[in-house]
Amino acid sequence: MRLELFRQQMKNQQADAVLVTEPLNVRYLSGFTGSAGQLLITAEQAILITDYRYIEQAQTQATAFQCYCRDRARQSLGQAISALLTSQPAQLQLDYDQVPVALYQQLQQELSCTLADSRQITEQLRAIKDPQELAAIRQAAAIADQALSWLLPQLKPGVSEQQAAHWLEQHLLALGAEALAFPTILLSGPRTALPHGKPSERRFQQGDWILIDFGAQVQGYKSDMTRSYVLGKASPQQQDFYQTVERAQQAALAAAKAGIRADQLTEVAQKILADSAFFAYAGEGLGHSIGLALHEQPLMRYGCQQILMPGMVVTIEPGLYWPGFGGVRLEDDILITAEGAELLSHSPKPMELPLE
Amino acid sequence: MRLELFRQQMKNQQADAVLVTEPLNVRYLSGFTGSAGQLLITAEQAILITDYRYIEQAQTQATAFQCYCRDRARQSLGQAISALLTSQPAQLQLDYDQVPVALYQQLQQELSCTLADSRQITEQLRAIKDPQELAAIRQAAAIADQALSWLLPQLKPGVSEQQAAHWLEQHLLALGAEALAFPTILLSGPRTALPHGKPSERRFQQGDWILIDFGAQVQGYKSDMTRSYVLGKASPQQQDFYQTVERAQQAALAAAKAGIRADQLTEVAQKILADSAFFAYAGEGLGHSIGLALHEQPLMRYGCQQILMPGMVVTIEPGLYWPGFGGVRLEDDILITAEGAELLSHSPKPMELPLE
Repeated sequence: MRLELFRQQMKNQQADAVLVTEPLNVRYLSGFTGSAGQLLITAEQAILITDYRYIEQAQTQATAFQCYCRDRARQSLGQAISALLTSQPAQLQLDYDQVPVALYQQLQQELSCTLADSRQITEQLRAIKDPQELAAIRQAAAIADQALSWLLPQLKPGVSEQQAAHWLEQHLLALGAEALAFPTILLSGPRTALPHGKPSERRFQQGDWILIDFGAQVQGYKSDMTRSYVLGKASPQQQDFYQTVERAQQAALAAAKAGIRADQLTEVAQKILADSAFFAYAGEGLGHSIGLALHEQPLMRYGCQQILMPGMVVTIEPGLYWPGFGGVRLEDDILITAEGAELLSHSPKPMELPLE
Repeated sequence: MRLELFRQQMKNQQADAVLVTEPLNVRYLSGFTGSAGQLLITAEQAILITDYRYIEQAQTQATAFQCYCRDRARQSLGQAISALLTSQPAQLQLDYDQVPVALYQQLQQELSCTLADSRQITEQLRAIKDPQELAAIRQAAAIADQALSWLLPQLKPGVSEQQAAHWLEQHLLALGAEALAFPTILLSGPRTALPHGKPSERRFQQGDWILIDFGAQVQGYKSDMTRSYVLGKASPQQQDFYQTVERAQQAALAAAKAGIRADQLTEVAQKILADSAFFAYAGEGLGHSIGLALHEQPLMRYGCQQILMPGMVVTIEPGLYWPGFGGVRLEDDILITAEGAELLSHSPKPMELPLE
């Protein structure tokens, strides 16, 4: 089915032959999960090129493809492509965002056809999730919700960022995540101003910011959620800061639906941050799509004019980052529908974690 | 120090300016561990280009570099490079094995200088490990040894591949690994013929092959070890098969020392496999270097004429893979010295796991 859609897109773009090299695109189109393989697709042929390490796995997983075992010491990828194609295409398309210059130049030398950019055919298909993909993302999001609700009562003064992150990650795996979606970002105090910092040995103190950005992976699909809290009572300034992000996120969540452009949705949230007292500390962009990759097309940011469509799954994650003071980011995963957006992450967003 | 060595190499290769884009090369040269950043290095300038997400982290970690925060929505990488360079170089070198075609073409348009391949300057430096790097690899290897010695008595008929892999991975982390070096390959029975298979729900049976390929990560540095066993008594055919790989590995371990070429060392092991009754099932290649990456230069395979030098850390991992019957691979990490090679992985290699 995905292969048929891909060929339909090829036809629309008048592409004779496409070489798919990005591992997640290979997996999406063929089912092959090995880390070394390329797909060669024409109207008549669908070939998975791999090597002795993966050929058995390829034959088991990529049943719609002819699997070819290349001896990498004796045959280059270009030579294999030439030998495999039953008719010479005028042009071979490949993904210029992914293929390195060295391979490109080698293929230019070895192939008699011209090369062209494949303009993200697979990425466009991947942007719309089918029911099976949605089920995996829902499950990944549900596991994250459960793990977080277990973790929160453990967050007390004296616990370190690394310790809390370790507990959370253990719980994600115990609840059935096959892997983490990415290494957990769990920061405290002024360190929360690092948008992508790593957990340190810093121990929580009363009144600290705590920021947790994490996700689970199920059948290759990822979830991605961020929550921010004050440990104990928030100061008036912390309240202002937090509520500014909260308003920006709520506005974007309310505005998200099929038909709006990614950059327009970005503007809904960014405008609230820009109009606030904290405008100087606003992070860039609003979010990204999720799926087999943590960051997929379309991205929710200025410059992306993609119209959101039913079946897209995107994150909404505005943030403020004030060096020395701290950062707040609130992030949810949503499914775009014709009427609006369905929340896939359900963890509550209290500003304060009680100390009792 | 690494920056000085890099500049020395630049001088040898008559390189005016180099753009380093590969994340582990960025980390190796600058200390910056974030996932988005490029180094721009000339004889006078050393600049780390990143964005708002990582700028604080960059300033903390990359103390020998000027850290530049690029607004990605408003300034392309090429524009930033033009603005930052105090004198225009004739040529900017970049890594053609790593830079994608799209970025290459964009830089061609935006820069007034020509582009050229940087020919793996950093990879050459990374191949020789300094004492700090060696200490991390030794620790990662020691953690793997300990975790495996704990695991082996748990391997009994009825235990599944996934269960055993999960136990092993938990132990690696509990013993102080900051991460797995890679997802554990733990296979049984005929599945051991998959050189890179994933653990399944298959349960061990008496007389099964069991193959375990795994590693730990410490301070970014990885270890990588494979052991193969028969669960219970090995059949005469299993003994022949196992001992063929054992002889190939022993021969390569004995021959490894500074001065031998990677392809020559490969031939030492491959000849034994090729001359055996199982020649049709020999895997390709002998091994690879390890460090910040699991697979680094130089590779131990035909076609690689690199002379091994003191301070290189490589794996020696010949294997036989017979579809339907099973696979055996034995892998150790060694430090190349002037006199020979020092084993960094120390787990014993019994052919059989007793059932008692």
